[in-house]
Amino acid sequence: MPESRKLRMGMVGGGRGAFIGAVHRMAATLDGGIELAAGAFSSDPEKSRASGKDLFLPADRVYGSYAEMIEKERARPAGEKIDFVAIVTPNHEHLPPARAALLAGFPVMCDKPLALSLAEARELRALVRKTGILFGLTHNYSGYPMVKEARRRVASGDLGRIRRVVAEYPQGWLASPLETSGQKQAAWRTDPARAGASCCVGDIGTHAAHLTEYVTGLRIEELASELTTFVAGRALDDDASVLLRLEGGARGVLWASQVAIDEENGLNLRIYGEKGSLQWKQEEPNTLMLKWPDRPREIVRTGANYERLSREALGATRLPAGHPEGYLEAFANLYKDFAAALLEGGTPDVPTVDDGVRGMAFIEACVESSKAGGRWTKLQGGES
Amino acid sequence: MPESRKLRMGMVGGGRGAFIGAVHRMAATLDGGIELAAGAFSSDPEKSRASGKDLFLPADRVYGSYAEMIEKERARPAGEKIDFVAIVTPNHEHLPPARAALLAGFPVMCDKPLALSLAEARELRALVRKTGILFGLTHNYSGYPMVKEARRRVASGDLGRIRRVVAEYPQGWLASPLETSGQKQAAWRTDPARAGASCCVGDIGTHAAHLTEYVTGLRIEELASELTTFVAGRALDDDASVLLRLEGGARGVLWASQVAIDEENGLNLRIYGEKGSLQWKQEEPNTLMLKWPDRPREIVRTGANYERLSREALGATRLPAGHPEGYLEAFANLYKDFAAALLEGGTPDVPTVDDGVRGMAFIEACVESSKAGGRWTKLQGGES
Amino acid sequence: MPESRKLRMGMVGGGRGAFIGAVHRMAATLDGGIELAAGAFSSDPEKSRASGKDLFLPADRVYGSYAEMIEKERARPAGEKIDFVAIVTPNHEHLPPARAALLAGFPVMCDKPLALSLAEARELRALVRKTGILFGLTHNYSGYPMVKEARRRVASGDLGRIRRVVAEYPQGWLASPLETSGQKQAAWRTDPARAGASCCVGDIGTHAAHLTEYVTGLRIEELASELTTFVAGRALDDDASVLLRLEGGARGVLWASQVAIDEENGLNLRIYGEKGSLQWKQEEPNTLMLKWPDRPREIVRTGANYERLSREALGATRLPAGHPEGYLEAFANLYKDFAAALLEGGTPDVPTVDDGVRGMAFIEACVESSKAGGRWTKLQGGES
Amino acid sequence: MPESRKLRMGMVGGGRGAFIGAVHRMAATLDGGIELAAGAFSSDPEKSRASGKDLFLPADRVYGSYAEMIEKERARPAGEKIDFVAIVTPNHEHLPPARAALLAGFPVMCDKPLALSLAEARELRALVRKTGILFGLTHNYSGYPMVKEARRRVASGDLGRIRRVVAEYPQGWLASPLETSGQKQAAWRTDPARAGASCCVGDIGTHAAHLTEYVTGLRIEELASELTTFVAGRALDDDASVLLRLEGGARGVLWASQVAIDEENGLNLRIYGEKGSLQWKQEEPNTLMLKWPDRPREIVRTGANYERLSREALGATRLPAGHPEGYLEAFANLYKDFAAALLEGGTPDVPTVDDGVRGMAFIEACVESSKAGGRWTKLQGGES
Repeated sequence: MPESRKLRMGMVGGGRGAFIGAVHRMAATLDGGIELAAGAFSSDPEKSRASGKDLFLPADRVYGSYAEMIEKERARPAGEKIDFVAIVTPNHEHLPPARAALLAGFPVMCDKPLALSLAEARELRALVRKTGILFGLTHNYSGYPMVKEARRRVASGDLGRIRRVVAEYPQGWLASPLETSGQKQAAWRTDPARAGASCCVGDIGTHAAHLTEYVTGLRIEELASELTTFVAGRALDDDASVLLRLEGGARGVLWASQVAIDEENGLNLRIYGEKGSLQWKQEEPNTLMLKWPDRPREIVRTGANYERLSREALGATRLPAGHPEGYLEAFANLYKDFAAALLEGGTPDVPTVDDGVRGMAFIEACVESSKAGGRWTKLQGGES
Repeated sequence: MPESRKLRMGMVGGGRGAFIGAVHRMAATLDGGIELAAGAFSSDPEKSRASGKDLFLPADRVYGSYAEMIEKERARPAGEKIDFVAIVTPNHEHLPPARAALLAGFPVMCDKPLALSLAEARELRALVRKTGILFGLTHNYSGYPMVKEARRRVASGDLGRIRRVVAEYPQGWLASPLETSGQKQAAWRTDPARAGASCCVGDIGTHAAHLTEYVTGLRIEELASELTTFVAGRALDDDASVLLRLEGGARGVLWASQVAIDEENGLNLRIYGEKGSLQWKQEEPNTLMLKWPDRPREIVRTGANYERLSREALGATRLPAGHPEGYLEAFANLYKDFAAALLEGGTPDVPTVDDGVRGMAFIEACVESSKAGGRWTKLQGGES
Repeated sequence: MPESRKLRMGMVGGGRGAFIGAVHRMAATLDGGIELAAGAFSSDPEKSRASGKDLFLPADRVYGSYAEMIEKERARPAGEKIDFVAIVTPNHEHLPPARAALLAGFPVMCDKPLALSLAEARELRALVRKTGILFGLTHNYSGYPMVKEARRRVASGDLGRIRRVVAEYPQGWLASPLETSGQKQAAWRTDPARAGASCCVGDIGTHAAHLTEYVTGLRIEELASELTTFVAGRALDDDASVLLRLEGGARGVLWASQVAIDEENGLNLRIYGEKGSLQWKQEEPNTLMLKWPDRPREIVRTGANYERLSREALGATRLPAGHPEGYLEAFANLYKDFAAALLEGGTPDVPTVDDGVRGMAFIEACVESSKAGGRWTKLQGGES
Repeated sequence: MPESRKLRMGMVGGGRGAFIGAVHRMAATLDGGIELAAGAFSSDPEKSRASGKDLFLPADRVYGSYAEMIEKERARPAGEKIDFVAIVTPNHEHLPPARAALLAGFPVMCDKPLALSLAEARELRALVRKTGILFGLTHNYSGYPMVKEARRRVASGDLGRIRRVVAEYPQGWLASPLETSGQKQAAWRTDPARAGASCCVGDIGTHAAHLTEYVTGLRIEELASELTTFVAGRALDDDASVLLRLEGGARGVLWASQVAIDEENGLNLRIYGEKGSLQWKQEEPNTLMLKWPDRPREIVRTGANYERLSREALGATRLPAGHPEGYLEAFANLYKDFAAALLEGGTPDVPTVDDGVRGMAFIEACVESSKAGGRWTKLQGGES
């Protein structure tokens, strides 16, 4: 067994006022195996410095750009330099730092979606394959114990062949033109230059698509969609309805919206097979409902002391049942698995660059199908 | 004020072993204003007679056919003959008795969907218009108090302009080929000769479509659909996914399934407007959830003692809050309103023959769009 | 098999403005086996007459007093006179009509609690025993299918020996002095002359106590209580907390309140045994939750198609799962069982006069214990 | 504004195999303001060393006893030595390290209950008062945002004068004699020498009592209880029912159980006032239900964007609504407030040594009342 040690993370993005950067930091450090060691928190060096100070980093580990961070960290001695790079910038700033990190030999954890476009995503995939360096993508909802349990249940055949899938991701925070008020999160997500071809599908629809594939183990092959922009003046979609055809004949509906008032972060998934069904809701993440044709529904709970609960679910759980674990804990599971793979090798249960390419293909197919009046459109991400 | 009296109902269908006939009888008589006075409970005269005896009817009010019932009841004196006809047969047996009843001057309450085809539905609509006789269609879910409250909330503008609708109707009872086992309800619903062009859309999708239009007050203008038959050997669809475009620019998803294992009777509706949202679930019918952008969600409850609760909701409620009213009570509200209109005139809050035509148009558009690879298809029922 | 026929009910109480009388009528007639044939709806003959007319009764079956009804109905011929008497008056008017009915040979369905006092209750029990006539008490919550399922589960040993019980019955409708506004339901329930020794325990606490004994099959042996009157000027308690000791060593808490704002009719029961637990809530009556030490919770649903669901639960169900049955349907189950016993003999699954005596003993023990500073007090109703 | 810096925590207890120590570490470090700097993780020096290594501590900051840690850390220079001590040992090992830490001038965060007995608790309170050093007690459930919102709502008078309280804390993990199997958590909690006078009341009942007082702002003045030991051979209670009398006339029920099968960690609280009610459940911690006499129930949610949500709730929230925060995040709020007070002064929103004394008084009153046959017993902790 190799000597264990605390891994050092270098962060790109996540300066003052950012949302997801703080999430990554809390998630990465929750289990005590990772520490924030360096950062280029903003493309504005002054802001980067101030953010680094907030985070109690020594001044010489706070950089004015990702390029500087990667260059200087690479030069540090083995026992001091960062072990991996976390990228938490808007979509258009995923590829450049990821490329630089990989070329410098640093493993990467990257926020989703993978890139600004399918073409960029493919470039990144090619680089990951070429370098053979570990690359993770934070489709964080796959980190929940009950999502892992759901995946295991499907994989073990408990539900039989899958027939129907319903994936939903309603939010309401963009029901009004928040981006015109200077709200930073809204501004970049509705800006094609920074977000890419889609707002709603890109930001949340891809989570739903990833979750669908993760749990069912089936690829989305074709889709027919209608994207809508409800808020006047918005440059990208804020609502999407998608019909799905999956491998093996399963059919489904996926819808996402950012204008569904007072929906908070309502990602949920229902899967119906020939022998049983399951249901999971992100806002009540510690419950997985299983449904059967001839016996009562079962409520499976995170951390419960059952005769049968998957190793994967138990391994993603820190507390006894009834001590709610939430969004940060699920996010932390990705970092925990990533860190273990860095130390011990193996394939972590973390979404990959391939998942990221499929996510970009999903986005682009949604946009294309909607423009073509809902024509059934194949996803172009499966090829190598 | 006219003298009140108990109305006499003559029933077509609903003999031994039927499901919905018993529901109509319990619903019609619940409030004490209607009694079962006559019936042609089966096309088999022997079975009709036995059923009539079960129901404590005198032998001379039990008939061997609807034609006989209508003819003989018409001939009875005013204080004795039936006041209206309830039709509770499978779809292919809606038009003939309805036509006969109308031509004989009897008001009609008819189970849904209206007929076997859009063409039949139009014929019936023409006859209703020509005769001017009261005709009700039992899209019973519109009878729930909280559905009426939802409709009022939308109509009053509380939610603002409607943007998105999600209507679902999952069931699981046809997940296996039940129709091959002799189960009567499954047999006729999966038989094109008795059910029409669709099983899933016809039997339950139309309820969801009606509920959508009833609550939003907006017509479904266009749809794109995919109907699927998951159970091998079944002649009609048992699963349907539909994208909707409604009047005024609202978009939506409607899906229904009869193979969603352990879904019971999961009709539910979510409506998102510019100012607020609402949600209602048939299986928890006494709760209406209202959602707002800037204040806590509200749980509106049947029978509650609020400063504000619509007259329509209160009028559809028999018991104080917390005394659950269910499916039969909602169904009974249609009969209660229908009876009041028979006695006192006025337009009852009961789905009409026009709703029935729209329902058939919905079914046929779903079938057509799905056959055409999901092409956006207009509903053809709105014209006179 | 005896000839079936529709049974004729004569009602005492339940005139215009009454609540529970209308409930009894809807419940009794729901299944088509009972008709309202006569009534003494009010001690005011004029009001009785008007109420009878509302209910479409012939004038000669509407009486000015229960005594008149019982006398005249007794004199009618067998094929015409009422088959039983339903008593739906306030508590102080239970014993007199019940006694008269029994002495005249009429079976009785009586609202709860049984009488104004334990002494009265014992008198009635003695009379029932002496006459051998069927007597039912409408602790209606025992009519729910999932309550019957719960009882079966305990009886079958699934939960093992019972350790702990929690019974709750919160309501909020008496949080303000409603009785001073002329509200009839509040007025008599807070009046010792009409309600007896307790308001809260008498009106709803007894339901919770009966449900506890019905489901566990264990008698409440001793209790320690604190009754409180929160609304100034009220003559009786409007809130009660009770510690319970049951047969076999089980311990419990029972609390009821009429001042718990916006609690509607929140009767619920949790039972914990050595091998498993269960939970049932009246406001979501079609769900029974079962809990196990080593496997997932199970959600048992009314009308579901399980390999295992008790005959008792299925027999109390009219509709397929997911078609909610509510308060009236559960209430109707008592009448259905009562009617079947009248026609066919046997012991109906309807609370008895013995349950009624125990209910009065429970009320009096609560009052006595509370007055004695919460002293543990034995129930005095078990002896013959 | 003082220079911010990362605070250094020294931990007593929490070695390999411990439960609550890991919780304290994750909670303390979650927000990045505290680091684990030293520890005496076990009274077994070897085990302490191994635990320190697991936690990546340098060998010279891992101690063989709390006494050694306090002595040596005290001697370190200001920029290096620990800033406070966290005590996460069983109950009998709270007073000795707390006393030592206070006498050495170290602030203390101590797990609950405060001590082994009321006498010990008073000693500790005297020492805290005398030294004036900050002392926090981890009644962690008060750290939830919706608990803080509930407290604010009561304090602001929204609910009016409080009438009734129901506090529950059911668990099921001790339904069988787990302590005989070598399970460490069960072993010490059921051992009077390490747990004190009570198992169920001491371990979880005190949480419920603290939560009741924290939210209502009212002290429990008197109680009547029945403690039970259901598992044969167990030396302490595993189940407790308590009637409460609070300041100002409020009445309540508090019950806790460790034998309620498949209850996980079901702490919950319902409070009923003259103007409104509220309800909170630990297992769904991000929802607070408010109930009103004349308008719909309101669902208040953690992180929501309301016009009105208390500063206290918002300050205890890290993520937008719908991103569930759980047990660790609530626990972390105590540490965050504690750390802020250490740096900036002021009174943190963290339970105090006075709360701890009241908790011990609650435990002892429960034991005394139960032994005295449920006699109403005053709490003895309020005096100085």
